[in-house]
Amino acid sequence: MREVCIIGVGMTKFSKNDLHFREMGREAVWTAIKDAGIDPRAIQIAYAGHARTGQLLGWECGVGQAILWDVGINKIPISSVGNFCCSGTIAVREAWLAIASGLYDVALAVGVEKLTARRGKGRPLTSDGIELERGIGFTPPAFFAMVARRHMELYGTTREQMAAVSIKNRRLGALNPYAQYQQEVTVEEVLSSPMVVDPLTLYMCCPTTDGAAAAVLCAKEVVKKYTDRKPITIAACALQTGSYADSAGDITIDEGTIRAGQEAYHTAGIGPEDVDVAEVHDCFSIAEILHYEDLGWCQKGEGGPFAERGYFDLTGKVAINPSGGLLSKGHPIGATGVGQITEIVWHLRGEAGARQREGARVGLTHNAGGFKDADAASVTVTILKS
Amino acid sequence: MREVCIIGVGMTKFSKNDLHFREMGREAVWTAIKDAGIDPRAIQIAYAGHARTGQLLGWECGVGQAILWDVGINKIPISSVGNFCCSGTIAVREAWLAIASGLYDVALAVGVEKLTARRGKGRPLTSDGIELERGIGFTPPAFFAMVARRHMELYGTTREQMAAVSIKNRRLGALNPYAQYQQEVTVEEVLSSPMVVDPLTLYMCCPTTDGAAAAVLCAKEVVKKYTDRKPITIAACALQTGSYADSAGDITIDEGTIRAGQEAYHTAGIGPEDVDVAEVHDCFSIAEILHYEDLGWCQKGEGGPFAERGYFDLTGKVAINPSGGLLSKGHPIGATGVGQITEIVWHLRGEAGARQREGARVGLTHNAGGFKDADAASVTVTILKS
Repeated sequence: MREVCIIGVGMTKFSKNDLHFREMGREAVWTAIKDAGIDPRAIQIAYAGHARTGQLLGWECGVGQAILWDVGINKIPISSVGNFCCSGTIAVREAWLAIASGLYDVALAVGVEKLTARRGKGRPLTSDGIELERGIGFTPPAFFAMVARRHMELYGTTREQMAAVSIKNRRLGALNPYAQYQQEVTVEEVLSSPMVVDPLTLYMCCPTTDGAAAAVLCAKEVVKKYTDRKPITIAACALQTGSYADSAGDITIDEGTIRAGQEAYHTAGIGPEDVDVAEVHDCFSIAEILHYEDLGWCQKGEGGPFAERGYFDLTGKVAINPSGGLLSKGHPIGATGVGQITEIVWHLRGEAGARQREGARVGLTHNAGGFKDADAASVTVTILKS
Repeated sequence: MREVCIIGVGMTKFSKNDLHFREMGREAVWTAIKDAGIDPRAIQIAYAGHARTGQLLGWECGVGQAILWDVGINKIPISSVGNFCCSGTIAVREAWLAIASGLYDVALAVGVEKLTARRGKGRPLTSDGIELERGIGFTPPAFFAMVARRHMELYGTTREQMAAVSIKNRRLGALNPYAQYQQEVTVEEVLSSPMVVDPLTLYMCCPTTDGAAAAVLCAKEVVKKYTDRKPITIAACALQTGSYADSAGDITIDEGTIRAGQEAYHTAGIGPEDVDVAEVHDCFSIAEILHYEDLGWCQKGEGGPFAERGYFDLTGKVAINPSGGLLSKGHPIGATGVGQITEIVWHLRGEAGARQREGARVGLTHNAGGFKDADAASVTVTILKS
């Protein structure tokens, strides 16, 4: 298949705001196009990733068409893609496949979500298709609290170690002008913040967020025809769906993440030790600990102590979530995956400002979605190279 | 790009029923897999097309995962795609691109919708993002009534000519065990059926329908490895978004259909005269008349008289909607495009029973969606060859 690279990225500040999704999408798309230095008319196909605009806003289709119309782009193929919390990465992935097929040279991916539209709506925000589980309170925080308790039991992971993840991500988020939260927190503040589901406190859970992010992709062999921008190569973009049955024996193992990681490492011809910087799906601090382990940066059970020792800080062995992650930057579902890729592109270009991972050459994003119990969990792992 | 073909198809009877979308999806997918004669484990990636499961059922994501779980397929990439009434064709198209890229050899596309879930819900079924238009009653029947009136004014098209489309499609639907309506109608019955929006009577409008359809795609170069089934080649699969601005001067022209058709004919290396059999998007009988013209089977304005003269009957110059079309077979949004492709595959294999277009070698599907006024209209044209 043809090599594909990213030539432009853009995102809004992630926040709670009063903007229409079209306004956020327009800002992200326009920024990405300007960043790529291309004529908007060069874009030949586009995908929009979103997961809740149908139920929250009545826009189940046409999200991409509306956003692109607002930036003056139409008469090209535009479709919606969705896959729970990794919908944004799916938009990038479909754009990547469309170019890889040889049918298109330049594609755009935009991810967007307007989660504050939940205000006044009674339904809890959870995964589709888990009517039974939702009814008895088995929402994502409840699931990850179970995971945390089991991890504590099996490996001696402590509340302080989970807090260390939140502290790191808040410290990094304070350096990121695009993050929803830009204030550092202390271990006392994390542990004494309101309990959501024991042992997860409020500061161990990602917030409700609005936002949009976009990326322009181009076939590597024709980049020079369109822009002088340094291309960032997509070395792998793996998507795997999980199987609850396979990890039910041990909920501290996310076998979908393991499979997606293995596929991505294999395709890119690298190992976990080669990754300089990564954005991983820290919807809860315990999730980030799991991902350290399941993506191969430490052994199972070592995530907590390693987090506490600064192994995953900006200057650690591998910099995890320099953007502040979902915990600080926020988690506007459809936008999250594209936002992760945007952050990694900035690092690989040396444009990440105060939170730059020095000398970053290889970056990874891990974006997960869905609910394991519904056998609908999806995991993407993308590897980018400068 | 690699050549891709269809090796298996399947669909439920389109109807109003009490089945869960998972049950319908399972039946369609399982039928397609058996039809392909492959091991379900050969499927490497899947896409689910749906347009209203989020707003009607609370399933905005995970539709494909749920259906495939029910047939014993998991741990593969599965995503949702949406693009209004052409969502089903988008599922096929993304599967086609995924194989064309070289990353996968075998892919599955499933389309599904459960429109009877509208029962008891007040909101009219219309396109997303047209809050203003919907509020003043500018729903799809209203739009197509305007088109019809203008076509009558410009070209002298008559109510009887529009009725001729309904009569033909009902006559063909009566031969199709998968069609929602299997009763013929007379010109008097069509014209005296309840008026929806003048001049469109009830029998000139497609009904509310539940259903699912599925297709198995395979890289042509490796078909023999998987099955002895005769492969049907995807010679083209064009997707274009429309622009209201460009057709606002004359609403009887669907310039999105013209562009998608031109792209598909060019890619396939054929012209309209080479098509033996086609399924076109007859959401209203006037729409089918427009598509005759915009897809090049007659000149603008000739659609009405040509329909009346039997030009598009089963034994006519080109057989249009041998399945009975949306008017008879029904229109379960996400399933429609995959159902159209299923019908054409049957014709190209000589398996269409009483409604078989004799000697069919080249088939076409035209699946349109969205609302022109929101600049979100999307049109797909797919060309299949035996």
